[in-house]
Order: sequence, then C-alpha cells, then structure tokens
Amino acid sequence: MEYRHFNDTYVIRIDRGEEVMSTLTALCEQEGIRLASVAAIGAVDRAVVGLYDVGEKVYHKKEFTEPMELTSLMGTVTEKDGKPYLHLHATMCDANMQAHGGHVNELHISATCEMILRILPSRVGRRMDEVTGLNLFSF
Amino acid sequence: MEYRHFNDTYVIRIDRGEEVMSTLTALCEQEGIRLASVAAIGAVDRAVVGLYDVGEKVYHKKEFTEPMELTSLMGTVTEKDGKPYLHLHATMCDANMQAHGGHVNELHISATCEMILRILPSRVGRRMDEVTGLNLFSF
Amino acid sequence: MEYRHFNDTYVIRIDRGEEVMSTLTALCEQEGIRLASVAAIGAVDRAVVGLYDVGEKVYHKKEFTEPMELTSLMGTVTEKDGKPYLHLHATMCDANMQAHGGHVNELHISATCEMILRILPSRVGRRMDEVTGLNLFSF
Repeated sequence: MEYRHFNDTYVIRIDRGEEVMSTLTALCEQEGIRLASVAAIGAVDRAVVGLYDVGEKVYHKKEFTEPMELTSLMGTVTEKDGKPYLHLHATMCDANMQAHGGHVNELHISATCEMILRILPSRVGRRMDEVTGLNLFSF
Repeated sequence: MEYRHFNDTYVIRIDRGEEVMSTLTALCEQEGIRLASVAAIGAVDRAVVGLYDVGEKVYHKKEFTEPMELTSLMGTVTEKDGKPYLHLHATMCDANMQAHGGHVNELHISATCEMILRILPSRVGRRMDEVTGLNLFSF
Repeated sequence: MEYRHFNDTYVIRIDRGEEVMSTLTALCEQEGIRLASVAAIGAVDRAVVGLYDVGEKVYHKKEFTEPMELTSLMGTVTEKDGKPYLHLHATMCDANMQAHGGHVNELHISATCEMILRILPSRVGRRMDEVTGLNLFSF
C-alpha cells in the first residue's frame, strides 16, 4: 500500500496480496482518520461478502475465490469505541462479466486497488440499534 | 432520517421503513439543496428500478421485494421547475450475492442507508430532450 | 458533451452517440486535468468491458449491444507519458435488471451520462508493474 495526501483527500494504491479492510483500517489508525467517504475500483481474487436479513436476523455470506474486477467499492469510515470503523459494500464482476457483491468482510487484491478517501472535518460514531441489530451512525 | 452538515458535505442516515427518493427530496427542499452529487450504501427490502430503452421508447420496470444489500447508490441532485430533482441509479445484491439494479423509482430501507451528499455551489437545471424523451442536464 | 466547472468539480453531460473514454480523454486534455476522481451514472446501448486474470495473464472481454442502465461508473484520471490516463470500471443493468460489468474499454451512451469529476491539486503517474503486467499508480 502506498498513498499521497492532497488537502482533504487521500489517493491510495492497495497492492496485490493485501486485504482491503485490514489495510485501510491500519491506514486510518496511523493517520488519525475518523470520518471519511470511500470510493474505489480494483481487482480481487478472493472476497467474502454478505447480506444481513434484518427480518430473519440471519447473515448470509459467500466466499468468492475467482478473479473478479471490483467495479465499485463504496462506504464510510466512522468511529466506534475510539477506533476507526469501516462500512464498505462491493460490486464485483466475474469472467463472464456478471456482477455479484454485498457487505464486505474481506477483499483480497489480485492486481491493484485505486482508492479515493475524502476526509470530513468532524466525527461520527456508532450505536447499536436494538431493532435492526446493527451499529448505526450516531451523530 | 438524521444528518449532519460539515462544510460542503452532508452525512445522512436514512432509517428502516423510510423510502430514499421521498426522504432525500424532502431534505433537499428543507435545506435548499439544488446541486449535489450522491453516494450511498445500505440495505433495502423493497425496490422499484427500471431501464429506459431509448430506441423503443419503452420503460422496463421491476419490483424487488426481498432483502438486498445496496452496494452502490449514485447520482445527482439538480433543479427542475424550481424544485430539487433527483436522478439516482442503484446496484443491489440478493441473498445469493447476485447483483441487480437500474434507474431508481423507489428504494425502501430495511436496515440503514449511509449517504454522502456533496453540495456544489451553483445550479444546474433540466430540459426535456425530444430525441431521447428524457430530462437532461441544462447548463 | 457539455459541462460546467465549479471550484474543484466538473459537472458533465455526455450525450447520446458519444463514447465515454474518448470524450472524457478529450476533455481532460483540453482542460489540463491530470488527477481526478470520476463518478457517473447514465445509459448505454453498447459497451466493451473486461476482466484481467492476473494469474493467467489473460484478458477476458465482452461486448454488450443491448440497452443498459449504467448504475455506476467509477475510477480515476491520472497521467502517463504526459497525457491523461483513464482507469474506469462500470456496472450496468439489462432489461431484466441483472447487473454486469468490468474494466471499461468502450461505453457508448444511448441516453445521457451524468458525470462528476473532482480534480485533485497534484499529479499521479503510472508505472508498468512486472508482476501484474499492469500500469499502477506511481507517486
């Protein structure tokens, strides 16, 4: 991973063999990033993504172990218990150009990931919501 | 729905049971937002999205009534007839992690929607284009 | 194509019959844009997208010739050999609202494309990486 910081924006390259969630969390800790929007594209060869069924309170999860283009990676960095908290969703396309995706657990980069992180000058936390069972934005 | 405003950017949480188009339109009216870019993720349990076939002048439309992760919601707020005009496209993934989407008519939030709205300091309108039959950006 | 420039941001309309890669490259050359993030939605009636298999060093490619909504177009403008270099990934949905996509070779606009280009005040180049065989960000 390598990056540059221009005003409120980080331009980041995540490299082959690196995992996005852990790499970005480490960057946010190191740089003191507590509120940001994330936009990225790239290519992965392993991904774990899921869907949370709020009605059934069941988390569906699927592991992909094939090469896929990451056509969109979007989400937020906020703060939970004093640490950076990532919430990212991915769309990925396989060799037939069909698209898959979901809530990101793991994204392993095969070629590169090009990420734009825009920092916002404040903090947003998370609180557990009893109805959905999820950690929601807490202003 | 709840939000905070930091400089040119709104960080917005849309809640379970709320519909995105009507909620965001109301926010834009209340806050006087007339030009903005939209980026969001979330989860829905009902969505109506479509595809407009310009050649055939037919609008294909589909309603989804299952839990899906909203992996990307992108688009613009502009102005038409003095009111905020939303144009949003969604990509959503089902419990098999397959992706679907289109032009957004309705998006009903099941868990949460985390939206970043970046305001631009100007106005862009809409004009009806006879060839495509669509309201296009009018500068 | 028509656009307005507000501070660090271009709001762009690409029109029916125009191809995105060539149109955006021309705009970047004309305006001297060397580092930017791209976010767009729109509608296409022809697209060539691909997946690069880093392990096999094979580029899979597919041409779509049907009307599709462009639900996300994301990526970067950087610089290579003194010229603007685009790297864009697309997600597109067909008349059944199924999603497809990949690395963008060509995107032919059928209705409109609404693009937000945010300029960053610096330069990022490209270098050929021997392991992946790709032109990666060079800071």
